[in-house]
Amino acid sequence: WYPAVTDFLRSGLFRWAGDANSFVGDAYIELVCSPNNPDGAIRDALLGSGGAGKAVHDLAYYWPQYTPITRRADHDIMLFTMSKSTGHAGTRIGWALVKDREVARRMTKFVELNTVSVSKDSQLRAARVLRAVSDGYDGGASRHQLFDFGRRKMAERWRMLREAAAASGIFSLPEVTSGRCNFANETAANNHAFAWLRCDREDVEDCAGFLRGHKMLTRSGNQFGADPRYVRVSMLGRDDAYDIFIRRLASLK
Amino acid sequence: WYPAVTDFLRSGLFRWAGDANSFVGDAYIELVCSPNNPDGAIRDALLGSGGAGKAVHDLAYYWPQYTPITRRADHDIMLFTMSKSTGHAGTRIGWALVKDREVARRMTKFVELNTVSVSKDSQLRAARVLRAVSDGYDGGASRHQLFDFGRRKMAERWRMLREAAAASGIFSLPEVTSGRCNFANETAANNHAFAWLRCDREDVEDCAGFLRGHKMLTRSGNQFGADPRYVRVSMLGRDDAYDIFIRRLASLK
Repeated sequence: WYPAVTDFLRSGLFRWAGDANSFVGDAYIELVCSPNNPDGAIRDALLGSGGAGKAVHDLAYYWPQYTPITRRADHDIMLFTMSKSTGHAGTRIGWALVKDREVARRMTKFVELNTVSVSKDSQLRAARVLRAVSDGYDGGASRHQLFDFGRRKMAERWRMLREAAAASGIFSLPEVTSGRCNFANETAANNHAFAWLRCDREDVEDCAGFLRGHKMLTRSGNQFGADPRYVRVSMLGRDDAYDIFIRRLASLK
Repeated sequence: WYPAVTDFLRSGLFRWAGDANSFVGDAYIELVCSPNNPDGAIRDALLGSGGAGKAVHDLAYYWPQYTPITRRADHDIMLFTMSKSTGHAGTRIGWALVKDREVARRMTKFVELNTVSVSKDSQLRAARVLRAVSDGYDGGASRHQLFDFGRRKMAERWRMLREAAAASGIFSLPEVTSGRCNFANETAANNHAFAWLRCDREDVEDCAGFLRGHKMLTRSGNQFGADPRYVRVSMLGRDDAYDIFIRRLASLK
């Protein structure tokens, strides 16, 4: 995604320089997506902030339904979005927590030049939604606690997926990782918004094509610079579509 | 506005080249704002489309409340916005009519890369608002006809402004222009969303500063590359604020 945007704009201010692992230089913006898209891995900055470099932490998936909240995030620049926190992707609303006032000022200026302002309709709706989520946690347990609902739902979906992969005998998934979640106050597994699924059948070199032939739409690993034996599976669809997906996957041999 | 955005992005694809009147070259994008911001003048393309050049017509103010609709607009690329048509600036919703399929495809791709999509909340609200406006014109005259309400309101405000300017004796305004409006089916005046007001007092070189000293906020002519004896006055505020503005303006000598 990021290289597509930078290549499109062809700004004289920045260009896509590739993987931070192989970066040489001192002026950079490092983008750290943690949990990572697509594989859910917890990532730390490799270069970090300092000198002419800045690290931007994209915490889109750092919510209790997806991953144990093991620490209070306190990075210099942190990005969040309604999209993966409450599921209101269509509002196109996100927010940032930024320590440096000058960086925040430039970000605000960019929003102003890009669209004058962010949609007020969306801001009002997002504020209402976030208030409803927050209200769910006032006054003890209730069935209106979004993150707990999400944690149960994601745990169940991941259990279904692991069973289906095991039943098929030809798919493998990343190992379960877990940690102490300070939000849930218990040990919790990483139940990412995407599954990074590998097809182990020797004759299948294009897992996405193989699944598409069996009426399952996924995103190929090569779209993420990875082996096309991998696909990214969305774990966030509606129940009925997810159930059909699981049945189809489990039936493959 | 346009130079601010191009200077900020510093794209390798385009740069701000200044006034179309003085442009030399064959690859360009000409931006034609008609009626013009700030002065409401009807503008035609100077360079137009052809060869490696494209004209983009910004028709934000081409609505019956502001100007006679003298002809069916049929330019190659036309931009519109909810902001000035119905007043729903906060939805941040606009639309384009584009003849060339490839140009339209690139514009769509830009939206996708810029924000993935436009806010669905805003799109739904805008569709509802536009339907209500359209419904007002089904089945004959009613008090729910937005553009006719707008025409009456703008004509009244311009009458008030011209009277106040005359009463003060120190302000002048562009001459009234009018034309045959095919929407209203009558001759209608240009009642622009902004007034391009000039202070004629010899000792006032900074009209915006002079008005600010008398508690009236306007935008200085020099922000539009023009003489600071001019200011741009918004004609679209609420009635109570507009009435106060008119009283204050008329009291100046």
